[in-house]
Amino acid sequence: MKDKILLAHGSGGRMTRELIRELFQPYLHNQYLDKESDAAILKQLSGKIAVSTDAFVVNPVIFPGGDIGKLAICGTINDLAVSGAKPHSITASFILEEGLRKTELEQIVASMSSEIKNLDIALIAADTKVVPSGLCDKIYITTTGIGTVIPGLEQVSTGKGIQAGDRIILSGTIGDHGAAIFCARYPEDILTTIVSDCACLYPLIEKISSFGTGIRFMRDPTRGGLATVLCEVAENQDWGLTIKENLIPVRNEVAGLCDLVGLDPLYLANEGKFIMVAAESISNEVLTALRSHPLGKNACEIGVVTRENPGRVILETPIGGTRLLTMLSGDPLPRIC
Amino acid sequence: MKDKILLAHGSGGRMTRELIRELFQPYLHNQYLDKESDAAILKQLSGKIAVSTDAFVVNPVIFPGGDIGKLAICGTINDLAVSGAKPHSITASFILEEGLRKTELEQIVASMSSEIKNLDIALIAADTKVVPSGLCDKIYITTTGIGTVIPGLEQVSTGKGIQAGDRIILSGTIGDHGAAIFCARYPEDILTTIVSDCACLYPLIEKISSFGTGIRFMRDPTRGGLATVLCEVAENQDWGLTIKENLIPVRNEVAGLCDLVGLDPLYLANEGKFIMVAAESISNEVLTALRSHPLGKNACEIGVVTRENPGRVILETPIGGTRLLTMLSGDPLPRIC
Repeated sequence: MKDKILLAHGSGGRMTRELIRELFQPYLHNQYLDKESDAAILKQLSGKIAVSTDAFVVNPVIFPGGDIGKLAICGTINDLAVSGAKPHSITASFILEEGLRKTELEQIVASMSSEIKNLDIALIAADTKVVPSGLCDKIYITTTGIGTVIPGLEQVSTGKGIQAGDRIILSGTIGDHGAAIFCARYPEDILTTIVSDCACLYPLIEKISSFGTGIRFMRDPTRGGLATVLCEVAENQDWGLTIKENLIPVRNEVAGLCDLVGLDPLYLANEGKFIMVAAESISNEVLTALRSHPLGKNACEIGVVTRENPGRVILETPIGGTRLLTMLSGDPLPRIC
Repeated sequence: MKDKILLAHGSGGRMTRELIRELFQPYLHNQYLDKESDAAILKQLSGKIAVSTDAFVVNPVIFPGGDIGKLAICGTINDLAVSGAKPHSITASFILEEGLRKTELEQIVASMSSEIKNLDIALIAADTKVVPSGLCDKIYITTTGIGTVIPGLEQVSTGKGIQAGDRIILSGTIGDHGAAIFCARYPEDILTTIVSDCACLYPLIEKISSFGTGIRFMRDPTRGGLATVLCEVAENQDWGLTIKENLIPVRNEVAGLCDLVGLDPLYLANEGKFIMVAAESISNEVLTALRSHPLGKNACEIGVVTRENPGRVILETPIGGTRLLTMLSGDPLPRIC
């Protein structure tokens, strides 16, 4: 049993400390965690502060292109980045299932460490609880990110400045994460391996951070997919969105899987993409900037903001028809993140 | 099934929004959450920032004196308060079990709302995931608290200023939370009802915040209990702690339960108490200030910092013997918080 997590590892006593020192500290230690105090103390942050939190319960916990650890860092940091914030630090709380193999936990922690180092942020606070076998699916992680809002991008989290004529830009292909999770769940039935797009978007968003108020809005289409996010943006507004279906990039293998099993890529989760509404005057420059970064090489314009159809999202199909997009209803693929 | 949580409530689509609007917003809505954006944007905070995070997996989720919602607010806010910080805001992520009754969730959310209002803080960000029935025990909650460090109390989270002659002060009786959870788990065998001490300590700590550097250290003895916290404080230091057992306040019913079932109150969790190391010169004034608040009415001095026994915690028993305290080993009572 020495290679497995035990209930006593969550006691807050000697074994909790042993677990932290053996498994977490080698990957995650820093000036904050090394103090082993109840709260991290940060220097004053200059400017407005952005805060986001998410729980991650993805199944399986390790999948092509990532794992729950990478996802827990990227997912929360992406929420900050699309809100116009430079990430500063992150916290993580772990709920572990009794019996979890330490090697599996170590792989997850190592992958968190790698993302944290790439972003040059700090894990400032952490917590570990253990629940009896069966009351958790290996591991759940909640992360909370703290960042500082980049001057000029205060508007992007609410999209208050969106107006008719603005362009809708997508940073790359859609559906990769959802499709990857689907394939990973049914490896015997689905022979294709699709790699998740799980990635931290801040380095890409940094490329366009100087465009200021011309960037009206950003959001990452995770749960619910592109269609749900577009509907959320347009809801109750006095403008509408028109999207051209043939401009939305979908990888061949993702499109093929969707055809085969009856999924719609418009509703599949993404974990390394964002949509943006940008003023028409800067949209070409924005696209050039996005395409200069590997994470944005497939960036493209997919539609426009219109005076017509207020509050609605209209999809123009390749054969000349139109379809009204609605939010995801039900859940074809639970526990995607 | 309309009164139960379904997997689709965690989809990120229409049903997630319905759940938020039906159950969370009536209790928790504010200027931050109403924006429904990916991250909350706060004004610049003045001074050093304290951040703490904790996952809560307590069983049962509702117990005499509190529930997992109250505990999730108090537990994290207490970590800020004992670090010398005034709480400013909090985030919450919920992992819900498919099939959870909405009335039970509502009771928990209402109790979070009540604590948040009493503290005059804001819930600035939240997230909800749903996992299949059996993969969670009703509900797990992770909260992350953000506060600003009170000038003069920068030292209390690490205790670097502790020196021989300082006094050890306990804010009240120990073991109430652990004993309450134990009784709640075995209601048919244990006929006593013990009420948890679950409470937000900030209003009490505010009473002594003007004492400045005379307050050397504070910590709340939650998991692992008083003994484990004292051992953590003393570990690797060039001073020791001597505690007088007969000065430690324990409620009669808690002491009785411990005798009956073989638990040690020194290792039982507390959720509304803190220990403090204070300079001898201010210890009487500190005690008077603590006792002026209902949460501190049983505050007392329980021991001293000594030049002898460096790194160790010595318990002097009522019959004149001594016992070396060690950290909690194993876990007599898992999932206490």
